[in-house]
Amino acid sequence: MTEHTLNLAALPRTVELVRTAQGVALRYVDQTKLPYELVIEQTSDWHQVVDAIKVLGIRGAPALGVAGAAALALWVFSQASENIALDEAFLANLDETAQVIATARPTAVNLAWGVNRANARLHERIDRGATVAELADAAFAFTKDMEAEDERVNRAIGANGAALLGPDSSVVTHCNAGSLATVFYGTALGVVYAAAEQGKIKRVYADETRPVGQGARLTTWELAQAGVPVTLQCDNMAASLFAEGGIDAVIVGADRIARNGDTANKIGTLGLAISAHEFGVPFYVAAPLSTVDPTLADGTGIPIEQRAASEVISPSIDGVDVRNPAFDITPARYITRIITEAGIVEPKDLTALLESQAR
Amino acid sequence: MTEHTLNLAALPRTVELVRTAQGVALRYVDQTKLPYELVIEQTSDWHQVVDAIKVLGIRGAPALGVAGAAALALWVFSQASENIALDEAFLANLDETAQVIATARPTAVNLAWGVNRANARLHERIDRGATVAELADAAFAFTKDMEAEDERVNRAIGANGAALLGPDSSVVTHCNAGSLATVFYGTALGVVYAAAEQGKIKRVYADETRPVGQGARLTTWELAQAGVPVTLQCDNMAASLFAEGGIDAVIVGADRIARNGDTANKIGTLGLAISAHEFGVPFYVAAPLSTVDPTLADGTGIPIEQRAASEVISPSIDGVDVRNPAFDITPARYITRIITEAGIVEPKDLTALLESQAR
Repeated sequence: MTEHTLNLAALPRTVELVRTAQGVALRYVDQTKLPYELVIEQTSDWHQVVDAIKVLGIRGAPALGVAGAAALALWVFSQASENIALDEAFLANLDETAQVIATARPTAVNLAWGVNRANARLHERIDRGATVAELADAAFAFTKDMEAEDERVNRAIGANGAALLGPDSSVVTHCNAGSLATVFYGTALGVVYAAAEQGKIKRVYADETRPVGQGARLTTWELAQAGVPVTLQCDNMAASLFAEGGIDAVIVGADRIARNGDTANKIGTLGLAISAHEFGVPFYVAAPLSTVDPTLADGTGIPIEQRAASEVISPSIDGVDVRNPAFDITPARYITRIITEAGIVEPKDLTALLESQAR
Repeated sequence: MTEHTLNLAALPRTVELVRTAQGVALRYVDQTKLPYELVIEQTSDWHQVVDAIKVLGIRGAPALGVAGAAALALWVFSQASENIALDEAFLANLDETAQVIATARPTAVNLAWGVNRANARLHERIDRGATVAELADAAFAFTKDMEAEDERVNRAIGANGAALLGPDSSVVTHCNAGSLATVFYGTALGVVYAAAEQGKIKRVYADETRPVGQGARLTTWELAQAGVPVTLQCDNMAASLFAEGGIDAVIVGADRIARNGDTANKIGTLGLAISAHEFGVPFYVAAPLSTVDPTLADGTGIPIEQRAASEVISPSIDGVDVRNPAFDITPARYITRIITEAGIVEPKDLTALLESQAR
């Protein structure tokens, strides 16, 4: 057993829809301020949520799903507070708002999934004759259900994944698929927390994850808060760490998974997976089944968000172009196992797992 | 032929020993100021050269060899200007100074190689009865010879390596093995310049090279100055670039090469080589034969410099450790060819090439 105490109570809830005197508001950790300042924002303005998503104040595929539903709920509350009638214009505005939220970022399937799920529920209520005030309450309840479901799913992923790790495990992770990427607990780091509860975690190596630094700023912060020993390294140092030996696993999250297991995740995941494969280190993807896009046979259809050059270097250098894809696609052949809330599978068995859950 | 004009005259000489009214001085590009400011420092103080080497104001294996010899020359001039006698104390000080300079940084073999070569020449002159003033002139002449030799060797590496590239080549490089890493012209980028003169270069992709950013700050700047189309990317984006296709080669420099071809180079080279290997992209190491350490059978004996955590993240985060190796070792099996001034060889044939040159 490793001597350190897990303290998950030190971690904030990442996104949380709350009742306020004026109605409802979304409380969220502004992740652009970490690791040097923990700022909890609170807003009733759905536009602010969309803006926070665009600037990565709220990020992480599972958190985006809940934040998307919450943003739609805030819009419905804004309509209810102004006694807007539920007419054709309302329906058109509802769908347009859902569309604006769902497309705030393109790669994570969860954002559109959360918004579209929430919107479908609202349409069901509308079809059954709900008022705008009733819709608002339904949207609130649905978002709270998603929050609870997210934590439940993450704890299940954690419990499943922990079984893959032996005592005194050293683990590499990339980006932040932690509590800060979800409502609470995390996916890849959920596995770490569940394993740490069993005394199995010796140390986590966090890739800094250029250009935005989710690993350097978020993963390190949350692991240190939670009491898990953590070492930060630059993204280009992982291969040399594998070469030194002593690494038991790589665990990352996912932004979108195709049916064959090809996985879109933060830029750098592909190179990390290739190096892990070369050195015989198991490579695990931890993600809820909602991350699987059943419309995609493989990873070639996943759109890759291209972000601004200023994220990489600022000010720019005259005559120098910048390439800044936010994600890459890791082919299933480099993925040892996919860890989900419904169990652990090899990529080739993902479709069968999905079908067994749909029944 | 690609339409862009190579303009090597826009590049400064990186290190240059010059005669001044007061004696001699080293002019050098302060590389901590690039890309936003081109600052040429000039100093007669050998301590300042050692400090510049330590803070990476002067860096790059071939440039370090010359700068090391130049620093020793500055010391000898300081003794000559004070009319110090050539006695036992002088000899002890000479060797101690050489030792301090040679160990300013541990990994690049060229630094110690340059200093020790210069010191050996000085001892030869001392043995033949030279005065301190004569020694100073000898140290000056020897350093100037090294400068000229460096450029000659780099141009030979470039000419040899250019033959490996076809028309419209897109090349990835890591760190800066450019003109700024040498006296002039560069090793890996020497190959690019020679190929560009033949109209063969479509574009160079420069890895930013965390944590110090030699790619982001130096390679981009010098290629843009020279008129070579360049795209900056984060280190973790190279694998996704290979996956997109269209990359013809990776060309990097080297800090130290073992007899079997195992190569120490800037941290991140190993992961880049593994990804290139996985995608079938040729991986070339361009380096002068002086980079080969004949005392090492393979890469396991190469010391790896560990640098300060503050290079990776600053201020530090409570409870977060940082790993910051400056180099990694790329096993010969991932290296397609080694490009030297004496020819191009597979790693397995490096020893034979060395022996043919020693004859």
